[in-house]
Amino acid sequence: MALQRSPLAPATFPVLPPVAGARLATRACGIRYKDRADACLIELEAGSAIAGVLTRSLTASAPVLWCRKALTGGRARAILINAGNANAFTGLAGIDSVDRSVAAVVRALKCKPREVFVASTGVIGQPLPDNLLTDALTGMRADLAADAWSAAAQAIMTTDTYPKGATRQAEIGGVPVTINGIAKGSGMIAPDMATMLSFVVTDAKIPAKTLQALLTPAADASFNSITVDSDTSTSDTLLVCATGAAKHRRVSGAADPHLRGFRAALGDLLRDLAHQVVRDGEGAQKFVTIEVAGAASRRAARRIGLAIGNSPLVKTAIAGQDANWGRIVMAVGKAGERADRDRLAIAIGGVAVARNGQVVPGYDEAPVARHMQGREIHIAVDVGVGRGKATVWTCDLTHGYIDINADYRS
Amino acid sequence: MALQRSPLAPATFPVLPPVAGARLATRACGIRYKDRADACLIELEAGSAIAGVLTRSLTASAPVLWCRKALTGGRARAILINAGNANAFTGLAGIDSVDRSVAAVVRALKCKPREVFVASTGVIGQPLPDNLLTDALTGMRADLAADAWSAAAQAIMTTDTYPKGATRQAEIGGVPVTINGIAKGSGMIAPDMATMLSFVVTDAKIPAKTLQALLTPAADASFNSITVDSDTSTSDTLLVCATGAAKHRRVSGAADPHLRGFRAALGDLLRDLAHQVVRDGEGAQKFVTIEVAGAASRRAARRIGLAIGNSPLVKTAIAGQDANWGRIVMAVGKAGERADRDRLAIAIGGVAVARNGQVVPGYDEAPVARHMQGREIHIAVDVGVGRGKATVWTCDLTHGYIDINADYRS
Repeated sequence: MALQRSPLAPATFPVLPPVAGARLATRACGIRYKDRADACLIELEAGSAIAGVLTRSLTASAPVLWCRKALTGGRARAILINAGNANAFTGLAGIDSVDRSVAAVVRALKCKPREVFVASTGVIGQPLPDNLLTDALTGMRADLAADAWSAAAQAIMTTDTYPKGATRQAEIGGVPVTINGIAKGSGMIAPDMATMLSFVVTDAKIPAKTLQALLTPAADASFNSITVDSDTSTSDTLLVCATGAAKHRRVSGAADPHLRGFRAALGDLLRDLAHQVVRDGEGAQKFVTIEVAGAASRRAARRIGLAIGNSPLVKTAIAGQDANWGRIVMAVGKAGERADRDRLAIAIGGVAVARNGQVVPGYDEAPVARHMQGREIHIAVDVGVGRGKATVWTCDLTHGYIDINADYRS
Repeated sequence: MALQRSPLAPATFPVLPPVAGARLATRACGIRYKDRADACLIELEAGSAIAGVLTRSLTASAPVLWCRKALTGGRARAILINAGNANAFTGLAGIDSVDRSVAAVVRALKCKPREVFVASTGVIGQPLPDNLLTDALTGMRADLAADAWSAAAQAIMTTDTYPKGATRQAEIGGVPVTINGIAKGSGMIAPDMATMLSFVVTDAKIPAKTLQALLTPAADASFNSITVDSDTSTSDTLLVCATGAAKHRRVSGAADPHLRGFRAALGDLLRDLAHQVVRDGEGAQKFVTIEVAGAASRRAARRIGLAIGNSPLVKTAIAGQDANWGRIVMAVGKAGERADRDRLAIAIGGVAVARNGQVVPGYDEAPVARHMQGREIHIAVDVGVGRGKATVWTCDLTHGYIDINADYRS
């Protein structure tokens, strides 16, 4: 099924500058797709640090299991990625496949196995033809280039309707550093499921532990605060690498004040990529921001936001351009977090529609109806019990989603 | 929007015999619907016991809050039900409305407030015109009849496409008893949400505590094991009344061996009603049974079953007649319960498609494909860690669901 570019897509792919210490190459290996690159190698300077966030799925894929183990070393020399086959639910054969791929990278780049990371996305339950991937390694090594970010973003796509990338600049102790990131989002190729992959590289010199300490909250406030359909992939992988090529002062830890700008830039970049994933949600016609306030904690606020963002009834109402606050009340109630029914307040597009647990009598529906007709929907909810806040992003649930996902297996 | 009768509906409404000690009446009050009954009064003999299961929503409706309080008394003389307005998210006005309704029933039937139960379903966020309901009480009292079960099942409908009822017989110490039940399920009338209501009456003589002890596990294995779209109504209410008119021996408690037949009949009746609710799920084209085995506990098995049954990706695959076991693996992984990836087994329509964490090589797809084309879909999953079992029922996710729920507010 040929998919049309999402109406919520950004106008263009941003220009990603080189990141010192990182080179990329792509290749058409024919794993599943024809006539397009489906593999990507990211090579990192010796001594690069790595941190990551992986799927919480208990049926995680073989590459995720490998990354979980390798991340404990905190060092990275390469990431090998393929699209078209997820190497998930492939049993021991899948693990062997990862082992062979890692060994081939070790030979090609003269590094240690624990410095090699792998990620696969695509069909599940089919053995990965890893020989196609490893056969391409010599060629990819020869092609490695610092300016191949856009090609890399395209090579990792499955049924994404556009490539996803972002770049940010920051300063650490007055020295400029760059952060580049690419991502692929939810797209369906029968008989499998969406997978979110994202790879971020910076030339900052940040030890792995500090990098992980910066990444975890930033991932919570970005990739872990988005939802397309509440389903969790077996393969979700977010890796952040720091090559250390930038000549800034040594950082002392995640709380180092010199990291303030970097932390903000990393958070902003991850949020940008996460939004791009939502904007390519299957069948999405509207991008929805849900701001929850007044919750018992930040965690509670996020759970309430996700309950709203995952509710099929809320999402179909948005698809129907219906400012259906009743369904928002329902979703708050099912989140399992404390909320004061009689202090609940809801605003849609900036207009208060409910307050003190009741609809605002005679509120002006006209601006709300106009807002619901737009592409960008804003919902604010105050649950009236505390000071916890969080923002969650989602898209609407449309006929397009059903079309894509109820399609017969080809 | 006129809704077509669900293709999964039973052929006919069953014949519900009288239950000694219970009488019913219905009335067209014009709360929202025109030209149809929208209110129902169930009168119970003095001394009737009552047990119940109410929504876990933290934004529960005013009638639910009342029932929660009244249930602690364990006695019932009347249940007053209306369709068309849920009296939810109506603030203090909603509570006043319940108080006035209860007071009117108290006057009409000469009983105590704590013996009166109320349930409302329909639009939320609009004040309930309780005067329309209470004005009809004198007429309903005059009309009370033992054979009005079918009329009652119709009066409580919102956008259900068919009335839901069931009856069972059992013996307690050799004396026959009857159990009748009616239910209404998920249907959407903008701007509100689905609500499940069910009322069950038996002539058995069972004290409230024992009745509750019988009801709780039976509700877990029936109404709490179904899902249409994972959303939780603010109004879900299941009440079971025992009039005590049957002249059987005294029962000593839920473990009394004389209650074995009754327990089974109650469980069977609740499961029947719960299935009828799923078969009327919005847009449902297929009825799906998910049997989970090998889980750490029964509770874990049910959570895994609900994760599968709530997954939009699984449900759209079923709508597309696609035996997409990959999405089932994904749903098992996201349930948050223990599962052994390498011992996972999945059968669809009785055919093993995955075993030991891998697809069964060369399994015969033809009978599976035929099975997926039918109305009744069967999925069995063994997660390979323990002996916990549970069965969950759901329906597919179709364009019909989007049509119904993304419709502009009328």
